Amino acid sequence: MRREGDPGAKDPKMVLVLRGELRLTAGKAAVQAAHAAVMLAEKGWTGKPSAEFRQWQATGGRKIAVVAETLEEMRALARSARGRGLPTVFVEDAGFTEVAPGTVTCLGIGPSWPGDVDPVTGQLPLL
Amino acid sequence: MRREGDPGAKDPKMVLVLRGELRLTAGKAAVQAAHAAVMLAEKGWTGKPSAEFRQWQATGGRKIAVVAETLEEMRALARSARGRGLPTVFVEDAGFTEVAPGTVTCLGIGPSWPGDVDPVTGQLPLL
Repeated sequence: MRREGDPGAKDPKMVLVLRGELRLTAGKAAVQAAHAAVMLAEKGWTGKPSAEFRQWQATGGRKIAVVAETLEEMRALARSARGRGLPTVFVEDAGFTEVAPGTVTCLGIGPSWPGDVDPVTGQLPLL
Repeated sequence: MRREGDPGAKDPKMVLVLRGELRLTAGKAAVQAAHAAVMLAEKGWTGKPSAEFRQWQATGGRKIAVVAETLEEMRALARSARGRGLPTVFVEDAGFTEVAPGTVTCLGIGPSWPGDVDPVTGQLPLL
């Protein structure tokens, strides 16, 4: 996903999984990814922050945006992530513009160590 | 920006201004917007939350992604926003992938009432 020698490669990251089949515009996708990131960050700020959350904050809050084609794939990814104890959130769009209200647009996972989340999302293509 | 009759039209929003001249991929733009949103939200969670921040949280955390072409335009927008007392953040990319380290990629403003932020960013095109 990143270049060899990337000094951030061992830092925790959030993985923001956009739903490909919706064919969102770049702007709509950016907003959905931002919703997911804020929801995941809120868990750290308002609860007891995990070691990976603190390290994520200390190392620039790394994030990556990837694509899963269908809602079924996103649900399977979320189950796999939860099975590993990773934080997950689903974004449902209010649906005023491109999609129907309540449409699931994005799955957010993390912040998590690469060794924990890469087995779940490492094969997904970049957005 | 949204349809007539949009029930969220009076709610506070974050405005995420991407730097158009960088021609970022959709994925890179999504990550920069997410960085800005988390930085702005952190101000609310770790400081004394403003009335518009609390209302923003209570109404779904509305966000919009728009484009300004150049860094000079983004700086002028930020000055205008700060002159109105609005929260602002600049995202600088770590630069491992598409852009040089330290490149400013995104300006985040808010969460702010539409009447405060629309005079600053209301004419910018959607991302």
